[in-house]
Amino acid sequence: MSKELVFGHQNPDTDAITAAMAFSYLQNQLGYETEAVALGEPNDETKYALKHFDMEAPRVVKTVANEVDQVMLVDHNEPQQSVSDIDKVQVTHLVDHHRIANFNTAQPLWATVRPYGCVSTVIYELFESKHIDIPADLAGMMLSAIISDTLLLKSPTTTDHDREAVKALAKIADVDYEDYGIKMLKAGTNLDAKSDNDIVDGDAKSFELNGSTVRIGQVNTVDLDDVFARQADLEKEMQSLMDQNGYDTFILIATNILNSDSDLLVVGGNTDKVEKAFGKKLNDAHRMNLPGVVSRKKQVVPPLTDAFEG
Amino acid sequence: MSKELVFGHQNPDTDAITAAMAFSYLQNQLGYETEAVALGEPNDETKYALKHFDMEAPRVVKTVANEVDQVMLVDHNEPQQSVSDIDKVQVTHLVDHHRIANFNTAQPLWATVRPYGCVSTVIYELFESKHIDIPADLAGMMLSAIISDTLLLKSPTTTDHDREAVKALAKIADVDYEDYGIKMLKAGTNLDAKSDNDIVDGDAKSFELNGSTVRIGQVNTVDLDDVFARQADLEKEMQSLMDQNGYDTFILIATNILNSDSDLLVVGGNTDKVEKAFGKKLNDAHRMNLPGVVSRKKQVVPPLTDAFEG
Repeated sequence: MSKELVFGHQNPDTDAITAAMAFSYLQNQLGYETEAVALGEPNDETKYALKHFDMEAPRVVKTVANEVDQVMLVDHNEPQQSVSDIDKVQVTHLVDHHRIANFNTAQPLWATVRPYGCVSTVIYELFESKHIDIPADLAGMMLSAIISDTLLLKSPTTTDHDREAVKALAKIADVDYEDYGIKMLKAGTNLDAKSDNDIVDGDAKSFELNGSTVRIGQVNTVDLDDVFARQADLEKEMQSLMDQNGYDTFILIATNILNSDSDLLVVGGNTDKVEKAFGKKLNDAHRMNLPGVVSRKKQVVPPLTDAFEG
Repeated sequence: MSKELVFGHQNPDTDAITAAMAFSYLQNQLGYETEAVALGEPNDETKYALKHFDMEAPRVVKTVANEVDQVMLVDHNEPQQSVSDIDKVQVTHLVDHHRIANFNTAQPLWATVRPYGCVSTVIYELFESKHIDIPADLAGMMLSAIISDTLLLKSPTTTDHDREAVKALAKIADVDYEDYGIKMLKAGTNLDAKSDNDIVDGDAKSFELNGSTVRIGQVNTVDLDDVFARQADLEKEMQSLMDQNGYDTFILIATNILNSDSDLLVVGGNTDKVEKAFGKKLNDAHRMNLPGVVSRKKQVVPPLTDAFEG
């Protein structure tokens, strides 16, 4: 058995980085030879968590076929969210919590997909079922990933599985998760330190919706005004990325992590479909406010998919 | 939570029927309301197993959207192998052991896919992990499914997971699995009772290979001559099905379950690609002998996929 790389999606968030570290650790305990890598540098929130638990960020790679024949994917399955040469390697394992889209394999694989709030919760349950202990520092990172993906268990994506994993991991990591969680989330919202590109594209993913390529970024903040004070510059950056990459539509979700509201900012075509998706008009500033919306996966992509296909 | 239907692929074999019964039973124990159904009547082998363990065949359905909004798939994920109106319902659960192809969901789902010889083995492990007892009659069916898919553990698709499940299930069902297994496999090979259509299409599946639709049927026998004594009629039936359904190529795998050899019979175009796939010429009777080849999934579809895409 030759070495395999384990990695999450492009523009990695705390879960993409942590899930690769955790699943690689688990698989190595089970006898595989794997290395966790990442498709980008950790963001400020992830850096805060890595520093808190004294762990190293995974090595960043641009391609994988130059190193290995086989890979394990975590936290994504859509090829356009994966490494650029994903079509040149065999995916042997997948652990995910997203929709399945354009994911095709020539061979049967090992896949565990659960509709949970966070992949690190799925991996926590795999550790449990295999009766393998989770080291305290890794447990701290997995706890951070669940806090990040579920906004401290407040997102509608949160399941009882996530709640149970948070309790168990907080105990292993010996952390007051509510106190730590707010500090970690705030560490990710320092917009002054972020470029326009960081804000609009740092956490962005591309979605193929009925023939249109829709780019959807998300930024967390403790005050929406901190984002939209820079709106003109952000729109310019979104337009520039659309021109460079051929996106048809660019949507930025600005989410207030304190009150769980979001504003959508929409650039490009298909604005009628976005309005149809949420049953609401964009205002003159190309924005709409969506109270209670915090989850791209659960509250933004599905209504958009319906509106584009309907 | 409203009722969901659970079903395997078209032209159901023993595993497709049994996996639906077993997964439905498991999910009902876990609090779901489900019913196992089938996309066709049981074949002779499955009938033998159902009779032996005194169980009823699942109800046959042609469509599902007229009954339910949500479904659970077992033993298949490719839409062209599923119910005709699969695009009108939401797939909430998937248990499979095949490649993933053209399987797209709008929402995250629960999926457990393992590269084992049989889906009933995957479901056996789910019962184990949930600490739920398997009734003796259902255990007998699950044992039958594994014997069927792995040709009594002799197929190269067989894993240690299948071997362990067979041992455990034989104990629960109180069956000598080797003695029972040979009898059950032979019950499925009574070709006299089968029409030409039964033989070429009874277990057939369609595969999209680089733009071509390739239909691949498989028939088990204890003597290849029993199949090819009827070759002219079988070819006529294959040609007729190609004309009706727009297949580009029709391949029949005739497998001798006693010595684990197969003959391929090929009708239609792309014969160069079939020859390339197996590094062997078709003889004047449009056939090639493939010693040791018994698995469509592991030994026929992957080399064909490479040859069509290469």
